[in-house]
Amino acid sequence: MTPEIQTIVWLPEGIVRLLDQTRLPGEEVYIDCRDAEDVAEAIRNLRIRGAPAIGVAAGMGLSLGAQTLQATDVTSFLHELRTIKDLLAQTRPTARNLFWGLERIWTVAEKHRDLSIPALKQRLVEEAVKMHQEDLACNRAMGGHGQTLIKNGDTILTHCNTGALATVGYGTGLGVVRAAWEHGKHIQVLVDETRPVLQGARLTAWELVRLGIPSRLITDSMAGDFMRRGEVQAVIVGADRIALNGDVANKIGTYTLAVLCRHHNVPFYVAAPLSTVDPALSTGDQIPIEERPPEEITSIAGVSIAPQGFPVANPAFDVTPAGLVSAIITERGILHPPFAEAIQALCRSAHSS
Amino acid sequence: MTPEIQTIVWLPEGIVRLLDQTRLPGEEVYIDCRDAEDVAEAIRNLRIRGAPAIGVAAGMGLSLGAQTLQATDVTSFLHELRTIKDLLAQTRPTARNLFWGLERIWTVAEKHRDLSIPALKQRLVEEAVKMHQEDLACNRAMGGHGQTLIKNGDTILTHCNTGALATVGYGTGLGVVRAAWEHGKHIQVLVDETRPVLQGARLTAWELVRLGIPSRLITDSMAGDFMRRGEVQAVIVGADRIALNGDVANKIGTYTLAVLCRHHNVPFYVAAPLSTVDPALSTGDQIPIEERPPEEITSIAGVSIAPQGFPVANPAFDVTPAGLVSAIITERGILHPPFAEAIQALCRSAHSS
Repeated sequence: MTPEIQTIVWLPEGIVRLLDQTRLPGEEVYIDCRDAEDVAEAIRNLRIRGAPAIGVAAGMGLSLGAQTLQATDVTSFLHELRTIKDLLAQTRPTARNLFWGLERIWTVAEKHRDLSIPALKQRLVEEAVKMHQEDLACNRAMGGHGQTLIKNGDTILTHCNTGALATVGYGTGLGVVRAAWEHGKHIQVLVDETRPVLQGARLTAWELVRLGIPSRLITDSMAGDFMRRGEVQAVIVGADRIALNGDVANKIGTYTLAVLCRHHNVPFYVAAPLSTVDPALSTGDQIPIEERPPEEITSIAGVSIAPQGFPVANPAFDVTPAGLVSAIITERGILHPPFAEAIQALCRSAHSS
Repeated sequence: MTPEIQTIVWLPEGIVRLLDQTRLPGEEVYIDCRDAEDVAEAIRNLRIRGAPAIGVAAGMGLSLGAQTLQATDVTSFLHELRTIKDLLAQTRPTARNLFWGLERIWTVAEKHRDLSIPALKQRLVEEAVKMHQEDLACNRAMGGHGQTLIKNGDTILTHCNTGALATVGYGTGLGVVRAAWEHGKHIQVLVDETRPVLQGARLTAWELVRLGIPSRLITDSMAGDFMRRGEVQAVIVGADRIALNGDVANKIGTYTLAVLCRHHNVPFYVAAPLSTVDPALSTGDQIPIEERPPEEITSIAGVSIAPQGFPVANPAFDVTPAGLVSAIITERGILHPPFAEAIQALCRSAHSS
């Protein structure tokens, strides 16, 4: 069995260690974060990315920040913790999981405000480690459900990176692919390179080599051509935020794939944990979309590829209307359209469990 | 008025000078081709690209090759010229114009086989220069027709490079945009970067800076999102080969744009000279599609962006079925669907003129 990638881990000495994804696939370099600002920097600069991984990183970052606080009374402690939470909340705007991870740690801190400060700090470490463990279990469950949608012989097209690197381990969308492979299905993967940051070419390809699943890399613009030639049996993507009606924000280019799937009658699957659902949003129109720096497009690995100062639009995500989504694969099972009722029922049961 | 770019010129001393497009936008470097092999190398390695420009380059390359022949009798001369024609014909497979340009020079050579060798050589130079002049006039005519489809205030999305650099001058698709701008229409351009070779980011952006037309660069994967938000009023692309039924082979990613246009009810226009029509092909299924080297995808500007040796698919073109094309803009006017009859009528009149 392929050893798990250590995307992010909490070390007993109070260090959050993460694999610097900006250096992949060339180098496997780990970064030791010693305070919340280190984690914030890593999230901001995409050293760790992928909605579920960001959620765990944010939660760990907040717990890590808690360890560094000098406050001796709980009111000051919580006040300072809130400042750290705000810092981490401002790193990236779109992925719901980031806010979910922060809220989870924050809620524990508030709930246990009667503990001594050392005990409270310890409780927050335990919660961060628990989040970590749950994410892996959640992804394996998602893979188990999702792989039932994949048939022997299928070629699956993926976008961005939804593998172990986008999570604590195993992956969401790529976890479904991996589960199908582990169930003995002879599948192939078409990997969208995913401009501008090339998460497909750099990260998904790297994971697929480790997993030994037959794959080919293509530019994002080739997806339509492969579908027209009947060479794609399913598209699986992840999600950065899902509204209550099933609208999905995900890596830019996802919406185009959904339209192509509709035109070619190819199923379009979204794989995401329930922590990606934003219970405050009725539709995807309200999802904040991050605009990233123009340099991500005008230069690659430091080499300029466009005229100096040429204007650029660089939305990092787009929103796919629920009507184009064939199914949403979660750790609790597969949701089919119309999604609104199923999502709300799952959210209610998740909260009550 | 913006000075014309000298994409390719025939110099009186028997040199074909062309702008090396692989060095743009960083450097403006010209290459002097002294024999057919120099021209073949330039076409093969994309120093000159764009179907109409390739057509003229191939014609000039064959004329240039003719000048270097030592044969003293016309039979030997034509025999050796055919070898050069075969060399140039093997540089790239998809663009119809390449074969059209070669046939045009070859036909003149055969037709004038009664001339002395020096006179025949001179006749081939004249034909090459005539092709050059006609291409510019043809593109201006195309622009004049096509700009009537553009409304004041429109944002036009383009793919690849269809400007002066893709032709002798003025451009096809971008020529239509330029003509609309020169008619005083306040338009904007969204430039698809066009992976893998980045003709949009490197070449179209460079031309738009020169022309002063407001523009923004996007990744190919963003087109759908901009359409969904109602920010695209038309898509204009060029063509590498058009079948008699109106199916269009063009830069990879064109088909995806056509599907997106259909989904969003945005007009999808193809601008191309009649020399792009292949009278031997009834449908686009028979168009040979060039597979380019994997390194175009796995590295950018010499920097590796994917795991070493990862398998790649790199079709350079795709085929858009005629049913997704709103109109074909030619130098003889605008063709509307169904295209079959209009194309065949134009081809007949072009041959008889």
